[in-house]
Amino acid sequence: MDFSKYKLIGQSVDLGEFSTHETGGESEKELKKIREKLWEDVAELQEALYAESKQSVLVVLQAMDAAGKDSTIEKLTRNLNAQGCKVHSFKSPTKLEKAHDFLWRVHACSPQAGEIGIFNRSHYEDVLIVKVHNWVDQDEIIRRYQHINNFESLIADRGTKVVKFMLNISPEYQLSRFKSRLERAEKNWKFNPGDLDERKLWPDYMSAFEDAMQNCASEASPWYVVPAQDRLFRDVMIASVLKDTLESMKCEYPEPEFDVSEFTADSIS
Amino acid sequence: MDFSKYKLIGQSVDLGEFSTHETGGESEKELKKIREKLWEDVAELQEALYAESKQSVLVVLQAMDAAGKDSTIEKLTRNLNAQGCKVHSFKSPTKLEKAHDFLWRVHACSPQAGEIGIFNRSHYEDVLIVKVHNWVDQDEIIRRYQHINNFESLIADRGTKVVKFMLNISPEYQLSRFKSRLERAEKNWKFNPGDLDERKLWPDYMSAFEDAMQNCASEASPWYVVPAQDRLFRDVMIASVLKDTLESMKCEYPEPEFDVSEFTADSIS
Repeated sequence: MDFSKYKLIGQSVDLGEFSTHETGGESEKELKKIREKLWEDVAELQEALYAESKQSVLVVLQAMDAAGKDSTIEKLTRNLNAQGCKVHSFKSPTKLEKAHDFLWRVHACSPQAGEIGIFNRSHYEDVLIVKVHNWVDQDEIIRRYQHINNFESLIADRGTKVVKFMLNISPEYQLSRFKSRLERAEKNWKFNPGDLDERKLWPDYMSAFEDAMQNCASEASPWYVVPAQDRLFRDVMIASVLKDTLESMKCEYPEPEFDVSEFTADSIS
Repeated sequence: MDFSKYKLIGQSVDLGEFSTHETGGESEKELKKIREKLWEDVAELQEALYAESKQSVLVVLQAMDAAGKDSTIEKLTRNLNAQGCKVHSFKSPTKLEKAHDFLWRVHACSPQAGEIGIFNRSHYEDVLIVKVHNWVDQDEIIRRYQHINNFESLIADRGTKVVKFMLNISPEYQLSRFKSRLERAEKNWKFNPGDLDERKLWPDYMSAFEDAMQNCASEASPWYVVPAQDRLFRDVMIASVLKDTLESMKCEYPEPEFDVSEFTADSIS
């Protein structure tokens, strides 16, 4: 499947033009098959990334509440080797974090060579919720776009491929998810009445997303707007982009540091 | 005393034109008096910085071996409140540090609001020793200048004043310090035969310093070339620049969060 129409590399963005629900014309059964194969491929590519230990991948996930960030991560990481995969979840900044620049806590968690890092929320919160609530002025938001681009270019120079996903849903879909969180006792903990206040600011969030994705995207550090309401399609798209990203890195298993002619499986004891 | 002739804000630099030994025309006795007063002023200003807890200072110290970085820090910090002052000494990067971009370990140690951070060596090693030994190519060095400027501008935006000192000495002075390290048993530990190899690369180091100071300096993030062979003058100059820096920040003691008319020293028990 071709996901290029969901890819942003700096062009202006109108989220209204992006679908929130897609199946790619495939049946559920077919999507499951495709997903299974992609996960196998990604796992294989991850092994080479880990063995080579020269490059890394940073996956950034952003979305409105209840769009499925947690389930995306659950599905994706179940198929990765956790030894080479670190998930970082960014909550409201602590007092210590606020006493530093907004990238301080994020940079500290950037993946080391050989790793896949996954950010559940990220430095983009500092130009999303912060912008929507006017916690800093617009000049500072503009400077933050630049700081974000600088940061992503710094880690790119060290061999980190950055790939960013916005899980795109409609307000109606969000409401249905909130309702289901209230109806199912074991999901109650995920509901936060404060989310209803943020929900009222939907158009402002969409506009903040559009600005961030327009100002902080490039071929080297693209955004993808993922139609996230069909979870199978979502998983397929994310796995596919991750697979393409890993393939483009051409990771190589390291050369043995011993003379392979001197050691054979049946000569050692 | 006026130290503006030692200040670099981006102009081209010829270290051969900078003195390594100065007294500012003052007697030893006079310099000691001036230094004492400056230290008191700096301590007072540090208290306001700490109480305000909105801004911070980053002091970067770079120099050839045996130029007096350790003694500079010892003298300066003896007069600061250690609770609001953190010294970070950057050695050869560890395996974990090398598995990240070169600013990762440095950013992690950037001072929080209210603090004075002192870097004994710094991110500039990555464009000094690394450049002299061609451990990375020249294109990467140029990109690192840009990454350094971006990083310093990021923390400046959060309220961190960056001030950078190059302790300037002559090769002859260095030799005399090495000899004294060998002659005094309690100083032997500071001698490292490898330093003699670096010493042979003196002109290359000077050239790397010149390039770094030309490419990574601005009014907001200046370099100072400190004549470092007279240690009294060195201390005076550094304290004076630090004092001016702190004064320019206009730190204010926070407003009390209680009604001062309701509480008096003799009304509470």
